[in-house]
Amino acid sequence: MNPMRVVVAPDSFKGSLSAAQVAACIADGVRAARPDAVVTSLPMADGGEGTLDALLAAWGAEAQVIDTVDAIGRPRRARWAISPDGRTGVVELAEASGLPHVADVTPQPLHASTRGTGAVARAVLDAGVAEVLVCLGGSASTDGGAGILTGLGVRLLDDDGAEVPDGGEGLARVSSLDLAGLHPRAREVRWRLAVDVTNPLVGEHGAAHVFGHQKGAGEGDAEYLDAALVRWAGVLERATGVRTHDLPGAGAAGGVPSGLVALLGAETEQGALLVAEAIGLPAALADADLVFTGEGSFDSQSVRGKVADGVARLAAASPARPPVVVIAGQVLLPAAQTREAGIAAAFSIAPGPIDLNELLGRTSTRLTDLAAQITSLRAVPAPR
Amino acid sequence: MNPMRVVVAPDSFKGSLSAAQVAACIADGVRAARPDAVVTSLPMADGGEGTLDALLAAWGAEAQVIDTVDAIGRPRRARWAISPDGRTGVVELAEASGLPHVADVTPQPLHASTRGTGAVARAVLDAGVAEVLVCLGGSASTDGGAGILTGLGVRLLDDDGAEVPDGGEGLARVSSLDLAGLHPRAREVRWRLAVDVTNPLVGEHGAAHVFGHQKGAGEGDAEYLDAALVRWAGVLERATGVRTHDLPGAGAAGGVPSGLVALLGAETEQGALLVAEAIGLPAALADADLVFTGEGSFDSQSVRGKVADGVARLAAASPARPPVVVIAGQVLLPAAQTREAGIAAAFSIAPGPIDLNELLGRTSTRLTDLAAQITSLRAVPAPR
Repeated sequence: MNPMRVVVAPDSFKGSLSAAQVAACIADGVRAARPDAVVTSLPMADGGEGTLDALLAAWGAEAQVIDTVDAIGRPRRARWAISPDGRTGVVELAEASGLPHVADVTPQPLHASTRGTGAVARAVLDAGVAEVLVCLGGSASTDGGAGILTGLGVRLLDDDGAEVPDGGEGLARVSSLDLAGLHPRAREVRWRLAVDVTNPLVGEHGAAHVFGHQKGAGEGDAEYLDAALVRWAGVLERATGVRTHDLPGAGAAGGVPSGLVALLGAETEQGALLVAEAIGLPAALADADLVFTGEGSFDSQSVRGKVADGVARLAAASPARPPVVVIAGQVLLPAAQTREAGIAAAFSIAPGPIDLNELLGRTSTRLTDLAAQITSLRAVPAPR
Repeated sequence: MNPMRVVVAPDSFKGSLSAAQVAACIADGVRAARPDAVVTSLPMADGGEGTLDALLAAWGAEAQVIDTVDAIGRPRRARWAISPDGRTGVVELAEASGLPHVADVTPQPLHASTRGTGAVARAVLDAGVAEVLVCLGGSASTDGGAGILTGLGVRLLDDDGAEVPDGGEGLARVSSLDLAGLHPRAREVRWRLAVDVTNPLVGEHGAAHVFGHQKGAGEGDAEYLDAALVRWAGVLERATGVRTHDLPGAGAAGGVPSGLVALLGAETEQGALLVAEAIGLPAALADADLVFTGEGSFDSQSVRGKVADGVARLAAASPARPPVVVIAGQVLLPAAQTREAGIAAAFSIAPGPIDLNELLGRTSTRLTDLAAQITSLRAVPAPR
């Protein structure tokens, strides 16, 4: 009998264990139940915060670092990554322009920008990559990606030909673009944006109205920012012919996709699938017998573009069509919806009635134990 | 492809659902995941309280009833069962002589007896059965089974040839037996005692010292009852040549096996296996693809003679060797020990951090959901 081939591709358990730690616990359990199993651990991420770490772990690579600025212009060191073959660079927006880094001051929703990430993007281009993965999510700004473009050499001008300030307040005055200084490689590389929402750029479901509040924008600020994004999209459309107002996903990270799609030809992609491809998950699934994924909470969001959904889609598309099992801190999705999402089963690590703190303390051992049991169950001779 | 054949043989979830209710919930889940599955529901019991109900449910039979007395001689109606083929009668000790029925008065550990169960046993013999299953457990008495024998016509005599009183206090004075009035069929039928402990009749691990306390016996009472049981075992040995002092399991139910083994040739058996045989579990397992069992708490006791252990043993001995999965309110046994017990996996119904009362309220839906997920996991194509 061939050894059982098991792929372990979990997300992190937020507030508890990293994806790599979760994968290690599950792999231990698989080996406990089947010492001869061939286990491939590929810690996953959904394209948002944590994705850089997941890719570094999968590549066995060290992070690159650069001194840049945070969302309000203060000095900040940010990490980025380059794949071992030098072909792919990774920029995680939250590294420089993340909301947590400016949590110590009064929110500046109109002023915050992605300029700091622009400096990172410049460094990535300077490294000679052929493609750049940009992990969105966790941003402090609503600037339509103008800060990134500014960092790459684009100038945003007002009616008088003067440069506008950073952030949404600059977009509210922008009239034209000066692309003369754009980094020479900016339009040569492939830009791939990991997006985990489908919101459009503007309107009631857009970046300002849906996500502005968590960045400190009041009702009036949101109205102002939405109008600024409309103006920005208009300038972009006139300059490039590309309309981004209603592009699904353009509302991610304060509208970053609008600027990068229009000016740099970027593509938006489901973050989990993009990460999966970058770490080689599709190849690992090709001959797998069983696949584990997992996350802190398995719920209706999980099967809408998050890691579990991405893993299930790729498993269903692989030649072996291996069953996918979710292990989670809590399982809120009923069995029928789980099956509909292409996931065979989802189990909670809770061993019985237990409170959150006690369960957090036992997450590692329970992950291992549960993985062992599930492996045993799949490994015994199968139904006729 | 042949339909998946699933056997559902759980114990009750004490304080929550009966075994039949648990089985119905699990069967619902199996059918939700695999509408074409052939599901055989065989609610189990471990030979103690609840066994009568399990057998009645398995047989689709109505309970027989008889007016008798409780452990202290007060009128009480007790149920018993007869198998559809008329061959097997079932007596559950706790029906007449159970501890809960005398919880309303001051405990009478020296006086309490199994006489009420004797009347039930007489009715069973009168019905013409060929074997009698006696479900022990939950007794209020420590009378070495003397009350049952008395009910069947045996007379316990003191040195003066006078009948001794009921209970342990009678055993302390018994010198000889008068078997002239013994029911004519009492030694013709096969007596099978469902026992779930291995304690001997007497000594520090015996009926009086280990179980006397929960029946209200103080330290002095326990000493007195232990001496009485020694005396009783001596009388039995002189009358029959059968020594029951150290017989494993003779300490069950206040020593009931001692009298029935010595005088009636009764056999003690692991309760779960006895019940399994009576409800036809071995035959159902012969071509099963997957077996569910379960109980409120799955712990180290579960794999020592309880329902899960019995089901696992029978599955391992069946030609199909189907995997056994436990679903429990809480799972306390680690994966390695679970596998050693011949159980593929054990899952808790807890969906995440949750308190006991909330979990109790969701037991039914969680049982169904979990059974569906486990069925899905086993049903997808198996590893090579």
